[in-house]
Amino acid sequence: MHNRLEHLQQWMKEEGIDVAFFNSTENVFYLTAFHTDPHERLMGLFVFQDQEPLFVVPGMEKGQVVDTGWPYEVLGYADHEDPWELIQNTLKQRKVQEIHAVAFEQDVLTFQRSEALQGLFPTAKPTSVEDKLNRMRVVKDQEEIAIMEKAAEMADYGVKVGVQSLQEGITEMEVLATIEYELKKKGIREMSFSTMVLFGEKAGHPHGNPGDRELKPGDFVLFDLGVVLDGYTSDITRTVVYKEVNEAQKELYNTVLKAQMASLQASIPGARIGDLDQIARDIITQAGYGDKFPHRIGHGLGINVHEFPSMSHLNDDTLETGMTYTIEPGIYDPAVGGVRIEDDVLITEEGHRTLTKYPKELQIID
Amino acid sequence: MHNRLEHLQQWMKEEGIDVAFFNSTENVFYLTAFHTDPHERLMGLFVFQDQEPLFVVPGMEKGQVVDTGWPYEVLGYADHEDPWELIQNTLKQRKVQEIHAVAFEQDVLTFQRSEALQGLFPTAKPTSVEDKLNRMRVVKDQEEIAIMEKAAEMADYGVKVGVQSLQEGITEMEVLATIEYELKKKGIREMSFSTMVLFGEKAGHPHGNPGDRELKPGDFVLFDLGVVLDGYTSDITRTVVYKEVNEAQKELYNTVLKAQMASLQASIPGARIGDLDQIARDIITQAGYGDKFPHRIGHGLGINVHEFPSMSHLNDDTLETGMTYTIEPGIYDPAVGGVRIEDDVLITEEGHRTLTKYPKELQIID
Repeated sequence: MHNRLEHLQQWMKEEGIDVAFFNSTENVFYLTAFHTDPHERLMGLFVFQDQEPLFVVPGMEKGQVVDTGWPYEVLGYADHEDPWELIQNTLKQRKVQEIHAVAFEQDVLTFQRSEALQGLFPTAKPTSVEDKLNRMRVVKDQEEIAIMEKAAEMADYGVKVGVQSLQEGITEMEVLATIEYELKKKGIREMSFSTMVLFGEKAGHPHGNPGDRELKPGDFVLFDLGVVLDGYTSDITRTVVYKEVNEAQKELYNTVLKAQMASLQASIPGARIGDLDQIARDIITQAGYGDKFPHRIGHGLGINVHEFPSMSHLNDDTLETGMTYTIEPGIYDPAVGGVRIEDDVLITEEGHRTLTKYPKELQIID
Repeated sequence: MHNRLEHLQQWMKEEGIDVAFFNSTENVFYLTAFHTDPHERLMGLFVFQDQEPLFVVPGMEKGQVVDTGWPYEVLGYADHEDPWELIQNTLKQRKVQEIHAVAFEQDVLTFQRSEALQGLFPTAKPTSVEDKLNRMRVVKDQEEIAIMEKAAEMADYGVKVGVQSLQEGITEMEVLATIEYELKKKGIREMSFSTMVLFGEKAGHPHGNPGDRELKPGDFVLFDLGVVLDGYTSDITRTVVYKEVNEAQKELYNTVLKAQMASLQASIPGARIGDLDQIARDIITQAGYGDKFPHRIGHGLGINVHEFPSMSHLNDDTLETGMTYTIEPGIYDPAVGGVRIEDDVLITEEGHRTLTKYPKELQIID
């Protein structure tokens, strides 16, 4: 946390940014180690180039911030107080002045709050801090990786529970309910996104919704799920087939698996990110399914389930040790069904390893 | 929907607002009947004083918008296109000019999008549209009420499942998992907030978190939960006691119940909203628990689980037929435990009725 703040301040010096303001729960968590959803109340972190940070939180949260070990100033405010007024007073006491540039999350901060922020620093030029934070957050440290491994283990467990629950006539929603029930019993409070369980032709659309479709022999069953654990996310997709499988399904499955394995194999430090998408896309296209893979190969993974970088064929950035992201090619054919296989991947000095470990060879569930 | 748009346009005429822009999924749903979460992609509705509305959506959603019966222009854009550029072209074709005032959701729209919006209308004065929409949404029509009744019925069912699952040694998370499992089996995809199940001393804090606390005789059990159904929410709280009850618990429970019933009784068209809070607060204070009821009596309920109006003692607005809100007094005493009783209330011409109907007399569960 201290290293992160120091690194940020160093960057602010280089860029001539006097103050940076963070309002998203994710960036605030990354920089303060404090995680809460303040709902409509203001929670924000001011980082100054040459002063200690100022953390503004709803009054009822102040004690918890101190308990987490935050060593700098915390400004708590009551519901009847205007936090912006209190901030202004604090800035005066600290003799903060001559602010030439203020950086903030331009994609997150609301118009109203941006007006209040610019009211504090009327002479300052507004600039963006998002790209910098994206690039800081993209490389995970050992502590983050350890949490993400546990989150991925829970995602594996969710798929296992789902596969075990399959029986003729069960509905998508019943399987989904069983998965989330067992994860909650393990202490998981939040899924990282709406769990997907799709049968047969419903798996043949990349954006299906689980419903009361009943399972029958010959159906593909697609699971896409993840959990939030200690502020970090996981995201896994597995596809199995129920009771019987035909040649078209086998070919579709094995094409996706081949594409996924090839993209994983290309996951090494220094590789161009866009190549990971292109390698999988080429395999799928050569097999004749080019128009049935309508999305990018994956996305960065961490505090957000979709974060920087976007793993698209256009991305010219290169992989670095400590990056975490998903590799999830898919083929969707309403006539045959759909298959997607997704792992969470960590780039290591030696190459990579997957955090999700549920088996990937085609399973025919009896 | 048409009435809503016409009503809005009438207001815009009176206020001299040439164009209003809506970006929140809730207000867009209210005005278009189309509900989706576009994630990071732009979805927005332009309403003009004297032209037909323009609905901007990610291209893949365009077909669904048409399917829902939206009769006006829909502008879909592909991922590689800049929607703001397409909007500008459309405005030119429509010969939209001389915009003096643009209203938008200043509490929702991000700085970046507000810059893009102001780029479309560089001469326009920015103004707020939030208060107007709050005041439109506060009175529900028959269709909205019918949906909210079903959502409330599902909340009742959730409490019933929770109460039936109680047994010595079960944990809060196990009860929570059981409730959500049974609701999912009924087709509920989304809870309206994180379900609360709190035992004993944990119910004695207004913001506890369910965990592995095990149930034992003499515990209060507090359930607070709700569902999202067809875009509308419900929100119920009930408190029961497990196996045995002492006098301090009885007194605490009956004080909350008396306060809740009194506040309900005051729920009639024309009543001052602040009085509903004050009536309950007076009863709780006279019973000696004044410092143990630290929150407002309730909140508006509808598309959002917390919406306008805030049911605090300071609110001088009056109740109108068709308003829906919660009444939820509570007393929290870490030594005795905590009790909260919450209903969803609809103001009718005759007075009110509660949408949630689970029994409220003190239940001792065996």
